[in-house]
Amino acid sequence: MTQTDTIVAMATPAGSGAIAVLRLSGQDAIAIASSIFFSVSGKQLSNQKSHTVHLGQIKDSERVIDEALVTIFKNPNSYTGEDVVEISCHGSNYIQQEIIQLCLRKGCRMAQAGEFTLRAFLNGKMDLSQAEAVADLIASDSAASHQLAIQQMRGGFSSEIKKLREELLNFASLIELELDFAEEDVEFANRVEFQKLISKITQVLKRLIDSFATGNVLKNGIPVAIVGEPNVGKSTLLNALLNEERAIVSDIAGTTRDTIEDEIIIGGIGFRFIDTAGIRETVDVIEGLGIQKTFQKIDQAQVVIYLFDAEKFKVQRSKFKVEIETIKNKYPSKNLLIVANKVDKLSNEEIENLQSAIGNLHLLSAKTGQGVEKIQNKLLEFVNTGALRNNETIVTNSRHYDAMLKALEEIIKVQEGIDNGLSGDLLAIDIRQALYYFGEITGEISNDELLGNIFANFCIGK
Amino acid sequence: MTQTDTIVAMATPAGSGAIAVLRLSGQDAIAIASSIFFSVSGKQLSNQKSHTVHLGQIKDSERVIDEALVTIFKNPNSYTGEDVVEISCHGSNYIQQEIIQLCLRKGCRMAQAGEFTLRAFLNGKMDLSQAEAVADLIASDSAASHQLAIQQMRGGFSSEIKKLREELLNFASLIELELDFAEEDVEFANRVEFQKLISKITQVLKRLIDSFATGNVLKNGIPVAIVGEPNVGKSTLLNALLNEERAIVSDIAGTTRDTIEDEIIIGGIGFRFIDTAGIRETVDVIEGLGIQKTFQKIDQAQVVIYLFDAEKFKVQRSKFKVEIETIKNKYPSKNLLIVANKVDKLSNEEIENLQSAIGNLHLLSAKTGQGVEKIQNKLLEFVNTGALRNNETIVTNSRHYDAMLKALEEIIKVQEGIDNGLSGDLLAIDIRQALYYFGEITGEISNDELLGNIFANFCIGK
Repeated sequence: MTQTDTIVAMATPAGSGAIAVLRLSGQDAIAIASSIFFSVSGKQLSNQKSHTVHLGQIKDSERVIDEALVTIFKNPNSYTGEDVVEISCHGSNYIQQEIIQLCLRKGCRMAQAGEFTLRAFLNGKMDLSQAEAVADLIASDSAASHQLAIQQMRGGFSSEIKKLREELLNFASLIELELDFAEEDVEFANRVEFQKLISKITQVLKRLIDSFATGNVLKNGIPVAIVGEPNVGKSTLLNALLNEERAIVSDIAGTTRDTIEDEIIIGGIGFRFIDTAGIRETVDVIEGLGIQKTFQKIDQAQVVIYLFDAEKFKVQRSKFKVEIETIKNKYPSKNLLIVANKVDKLSNEEIENLQSAIGNLHLLSAKTGQGVEKIQNKLLEFVNTGALRNNETIVTNSRHYDAMLKALEEIIKVQEGIDNGLSGDLLAIDIRQALYYFGEITGEISNDELLGNIFANFCIGK
Repeated sequence: MTQTDTIVAMATPAGSGAIAVLRLSGQDAIAIASSIFFSVSGKQLSNQKSHTVHLGQIKDSERVIDEALVTIFKNPNSYTGEDVVEISCHGSNYIQQEIIQLCLRKGCRMAQAGEFTLRAFLNGKMDLSQAEAVADLIASDSAASHQLAIQQMRGGFSSEIKKLREELLNFASLIELELDFAEEDVEFANRVEFQKLISKITQVLKRLIDSFATGNVLKNGIPVAIVGEPNVGKSTLLNALLNEERAIVSDIAGTTRDTIEDEIIIGGIGFRFIDTAGIRETVDVIEGLGIQKTFQKIDQAQVVIYLFDAEKFKVQRSKFKVEIETIKNKYPSKNLLIVANKVDKLSNEEIENLQSAIGNLHLLSAKTGQGVEKIQNKLLEFVNTGALRNNETIVTNSRHYDAMLKALEEIIKVQEGIDNGLSGDLLAIDIRQALYYFGEITGEISNDELLGNIFANFCIGK
């Protein structure tokens, strides 16, 4: 698995900025950098200490490509655990390309997606779940998804899993050792302690598996479906919440024919608002397809906002009430928010009538902004951020979730084995299988295909 | 002019990359960084040497925002000449914003566009023309524009200008000194040496002023107008040259109603291809406006490509010949390239007839790519890259060009003064004026408005 070649890639985003950083990693990183970099002070890079920065010129033979800062990190004290050189050049795309090309001519090869982090994993700088958290961290766009990622990157549950795995491994070895002395009927593994460990593992796995539902929505945003008839102001509400004009707003009923999604951060939590075509009956075929989609989207949503036109309530009262009951009956467990829009056009008396007709009603004027903040607060109430606040470990990665489900299955078999007085050799098989799934999470057990799948989702340069 | 506050900005482009770099500069840079950065080794940033890199956590009180690398540069050995701290964090927009916000709360202020480079100038790390070259370097997108920018950044003509200015300043002082001793009729300034200097300055200024025409096109790309009737294949040629589908290609004559420009790099030189609506007579009003624009664009172009349909030559022979003559007569000094397109549809005999009817003809099949490379080579021949190849100093900045024109005007007045035996006090006035314009180029003479104009064109973070 040892990597011998030296890889290079841009580490900063494409585009024009003040500076750009490119990164070399591998056994020839410092030698290759030395062949293209000429320090102002005349010092040789290879003689410099780790973690030092040097000013000089990047040259292709006599041609000066740029004035740049070069930082060297000597193995094992680098991100990848190999010798690493970072070149901080001017942020011109042309210069970046020229330096990359020069490095390739001097013997580097282009890094593949995630290859720096893959090397960090292979060199034992981090375990697999930490490596995966690096990609999550880069993709994080809210306080919640950021906190989940950084917690996982800093060890998170993987240290817990690792510790449990070691204890379990120890018991597995002892039980297997007993098999060698089968005729003497000895018991190296303390069965009371073993039962304690299995109970503890069961408990931890169940908690982590349960945390996935929370983790997944916190990471990806909480889906909120906005339902209501066309022209009721769904797009305007979305815009008020978004505070900018992303959705199409129009006065023609039925403008929002397809579902659009937009994410906004409220109180550090991401919400994915799903604007739907409403659920009114229609003869328009395209509109009809939209309504099917509306129900599909409600299925996926964790919160449903039913939005109706307060002005139309007098004439369409029964229709609205039926629709609200439809949603309540079809989705009894969903969080439902009933919102009357355009209340700025109503008298105080009309508003009072409205409130007495429909319980638990939120008044809104998406146009003027009245009631928008109240809806935001209500949305936050629906989110269970307890685990996040208490800094509990939360699983957000479906690969980990799958492995934990499988590990739990095996642990339950082990428990059954203990309960039924199963022989040590059979018990050992189930324990080994559980150990395998534990190992998959942190990467003690890995293979090229698994690693390929994980790191292919990284950006190049990480 | 001394800056006392500490500024912060992202130095890398917006967007998601592996890493992002933000930069602090000012007297509190290290103190502010110390208050948010906690090194893994437990060392205090303020006790560390300049040009060293440290791994640790960025924290907002107890909340970990990121694991990051922090580099410190102690004044005067930094880009700005002040204490500078660079924080290399994970490339999430969320993390970048959090760290910036944290720095602002700790006492930084957001840097204005170009403010880091402005400080470098104010602290004497570079002169004004070098500072301007930094922006050009970041914007450079071809070998030619890159070479011009890096030459200027590394001193270029500014060292030459500075030296001449010093010599001239010396003479100005001597001549002014003579005025104090006017009654004694002494001559401190050697008039022969002075005349030599004025001749030399005149020569240098003329050469630099002349270089601007070359420098300007090399920096901005050489404008090439493609002229020919609709449907002749202008867009297809453009695409063949661009090697991708940027222009609209259609079979309806007259599709290209407006002028479009696209830049491609050939042999390290940027060419701005200007696709025009052709010059055929038309009754279509919009089309007619396009033809007016065609002539406007030929005015601005340095090279004109006249493109006609080889298949139509038999029937439209006289029309094409008239149009070619029109261009030749109207623009005798422009480089003209006459190109017959769609030659793949002609027999060898037809091609021979075509070549004998029109001299200096280039055969092209934009569709198959035949003849495209020949046109590229021809375009390169039109460009005077001699100065570039010989590493001569070239002026590319219109501000410098203007100042040099004005300086030359004053120097000519000085020369006339010498020729007419003008008195020292009057001579001194013209010399001082010339010195002023020299000083404007390198920044010995500057004011807030001038600096504001220059640095407003920079990106934030540079």
